[in-house]
Amino acid sequence: MNDMISFVETCIQEGKFSRIREEIIELNVVDIAQLLDELEEEKTLIVFRLLPKEISVEVFSYMSTEQQQYIIESITDKEIQNIISNMFMDDTVDILEEMPANVVKKILRNVSEDRRKLINQFLRYPDYSAGSLMTIEYVDLKKEMTVEQAIQRIRSIGLDKETINICYVMDQNRKLEGVIPIRQLLLNDGSTRIGDIMETNFISIDTHTDQEEISNLFRKYDLLAMPVVDHENRLVGIITIDDIVDIIEQENTEDFQVMAAIQPSEEEYLKTRVTRLAKNRIVWLLILMISATFTGTIIKHYEEVLSSVVVLAAFIPMLMDSAGNAGSQSATMIIRGLALEEIHIRNIGMVIWKELRVGLMVGIILSAVNFLRVYWFEKTDIAVAITISISLFLTIVLAKVVGSSLPILAKKIKLDPAIMAAPMITTIVDALSLLAYFRIATWLIFK
Amino acid sequence: MNDMISFVETCIQEGKFSRIREEIIELNVVDIAQLLDELEEEKTLIVFRLLPKEISVEVFSYMSTEQQQYIIESITDKEIQNIISNMFMDDTVDILEEMPANVVKKILRNVSEDRRKLINQFLRYPDYSAGSLMTIEYVDLKKEMTVEQAIQRIRSIGLDKETINICYVMDQNRKLEGVIPIRQLLLNDGSTRIGDIMETNFISIDTHTDQEEISNLFRKYDLLAMPVVDHENRLVGIITIDDIVDIIEQENTEDFQVMAAIQPSEEEYLKTRVTRLAKNRIVWLLILMISATFTGTIIKHYEEVLSSVVVLAAFIPMLMDSAGNAGSQSATMIIRGLALEEIHIRNIGMVIWKELRVGLMVGIILSAVNFLRVYWFEKTDIAVAITISISLFLTIVLAKVVGSSLPILAKKIKLDPAIMAAPMITTIVDALSLLAYFRIATWLIFK
Repeated sequence: MNDMISFVETCIQEGKFSRIREEIIELNVVDIAQLLDELEEEKTLIVFRLLPKEISVEVFSYMSTEQQQYIIESITDKEIQNIISNMFMDDTVDILEEMPANVVKKILRNVSEDRRKLINQFLRYPDYSAGSLMTIEYVDLKKEMTVEQAIQRIRSIGLDKETINICYVMDQNRKLEGVIPIRQLLLNDGSTRIGDIMETNFISIDTHTDQEEISNLFRKYDLLAMPVVDHENRLVGIITIDDIVDIIEQENTEDFQVMAAIQPSEEEYLKTRVTRLAKNRIVWLLILMISATFTGTIIKHYEEVLSSVVVLAAFIPMLMDSAGNAGSQSATMIIRGLALEEIHIRNIGMVIWKELRVGLMVGIILSAVNFLRVYWFEKTDIAVAITISISLFLTIVLAKVVGSSLPILAKKIKLDPAIMAAPMITTIVDALSLLAYFRIATWLIFK
Repeated sequence: MNDMISFVETCIQEGKFSRIREEIIELNVVDIAQLLDELEEEKTLIVFRLLPKEISVEVFSYMSTEQQQYIIESITDKEIQNIISNMFMDDTVDILEEMPANVVKKILRNVSEDRRKLINQFLRYPDYSAGSLMTIEYVDLKKEMTVEQAIQRIRSIGLDKETINICYVMDQNRKLEGVIPIRQLLLNDGSTRIGDIMETNFISIDTHTDQEEISNLFRKYDLLAMPVVDHENRLVGIITIDDIVDIIEQENTEDFQVMAAIQPSEEEYLKTRVTRLAKNRIVWLLILMISATFTGTIIKHYEEVLSSVVVLAAFIPMLMDSAGNAGSQSATMIIRGLALEEIHIRNIGMVIWKELRVGLMVGIILSAVNFLRVYWFEKTDIAVAITISISLFLTIVLAKVVGSSLPILAKKIKLDPAIMAAPMITTIVDALSLLAYFRIATWLIFK
């Protein structure tokens, strides 16, 4: 890639534009877009204008938002018309959502009345809903057509890429009656009636379905595309698998961020400003810091115990960390299971019972190992050693139960289960573990 | 789904088998498989045998491993032959990898010599490599064919599902020369030569490419299928997008587990035995518990300081938790960026510089808020309040730098960056934060 960049830069300096064109059209459109992203702005524009019309639109849709904005601001109205009228509807909507108002205006001024209305309608669908993801480039057929007529229609529409791997059969009111993969058209005789070979048992969603649910359906049924219908079952668009792959990674990134107490953001890390990164992290850090005060209050409450047996303090980190780790192991398993729809709210009893047993097993091993270490190797007083081991055992079991049930309860009250991950669980079980620790200490050492 | 299960159970009791068949073939194959998974074993077998041959194979490949094993063990050799000879190669290999030796034997006894050789070759590819994911069901064409001849060939092979959305053009030595989506066949005239319309600028991988790299390529280039070639560029198989969607979720699940200090496992949570769950979690818990001892040693070392100012102990949890959270925020962002290939090892300097500035900003805010709270509201001694705030500030900055650099260093030495997540980072920065805390305390309070 670096070779290509310096090659292009040299050619521009030497005015060898046709050389650039020759080399660049051999590349994949995604790679051309990446190359343009890495050039300086004016050079980007020069190279972009060298691209043949038919590929410039596709390259444009793969470029970074900043470079797209620069290009729109720099090119003529006529060039904008060419791009926007040839771009898929879902890409158009994606780009408009990212652009500042003046650029959106410049774009909308250059599209036809009909298309502008349609774009505005798409922009009104809620974020992350089927409506905001779908595109309108699909082939519509009628039941009464023959395979030959259907192929004629595909040729006259002549759409590109994944959109015509599946065609959609509608009645006169645009109600969806069936779907038919184009391979079926190839495998059947030209005179076969579409109505006889279409699949009527298809999966469709409505415009308001959330993207997480959509991606789970794609995954479950191994789909390549899915029709989106309105409340009267009329086809309004389709969603294709290439967008779903991006959405799955987006949903996962969101979960990773929320689980690490970060406000989710779709921006790439290296492109995010420092102030923005700090802003996304400070809120939860403050909340968790203040919550941890509660744990401090517990220690203060037992100050007397601690001042007479100061060695107790030395085991606080081990106890807190083990509790936190045990709890977040459970929380992670459950949050992940909920996201993949392998675990449901109704399974809460089964989950707690399972984690209780895991907690007992893991707790016994950890506290036994710990006892050996503290009593035999560190020669700690036996009462202290017993206190630590019992507290450790209790906290591990508690941590497993708390860590597994809170994500499910969060989902039950319609919160994102991912907030009940390591940071939150750690804060909660830390308090519980110290409470247990000092209670047992008071009881065993001082009575 | 529950309605369907009780309907099927009633019909079996009443011997109304044709009713079951009528109802069930209206369902999607994935739903039939799910239904069979939830029936008792003997009933599963009854219903499975009611399925028409052409759909039973597909249903079988979607069933759970346990039910697949039960079915293979219960049906006749002839039935096994029907299933195995009609199943896609990638599904066959997946199933064989999961089955116990005696079942594998029973299956292999029932396939032809040629197919057995092929299966054995597939089973030898390393796990998670392109070789173990690919399938061999694709349409191969020759450059010299016309579109009409190509369509003839597709009809004679007549493959199913996603496999024939793209055809592969090879020379006489089976070297891959180009790819052609079937929509191109539909859009072009019957007499057009394949060599003139095929794409020669395609992306291919070799049999040993890792699945994470493969899924990143699918995502980057919006692919639907990708050819797999051997070291002499001969086509040996293809990988299709439906498998990639599963792999992406699998890779994410693995990252979530490793990041929560769990040994990764592909089993569904509810189907995993308690002993297995405990086993997957105990190793890291033990390692981390023993590492936390180090932190305890630091406290012991400063026992004198602590016993004269016991209140210092009350702020240990807040300090440890804030450091842990700040560090794991950074680690999560970097681990995720590395996985999505948005961050590379060469960016380490840029990343540390970014996190250093984020740490300074976040650290100042947190320690200011903390000072206000501790000094004004809790009326703590000023020297203690200053000690806490300075330590907090230092630890936040340290945590950000450690949390962001360790995942990159792990990748550099070919470890999975995900192990440098919350649990590991917390253990490390806990020790650092307590060291800073007691050093500053000794200096500020006792000098």
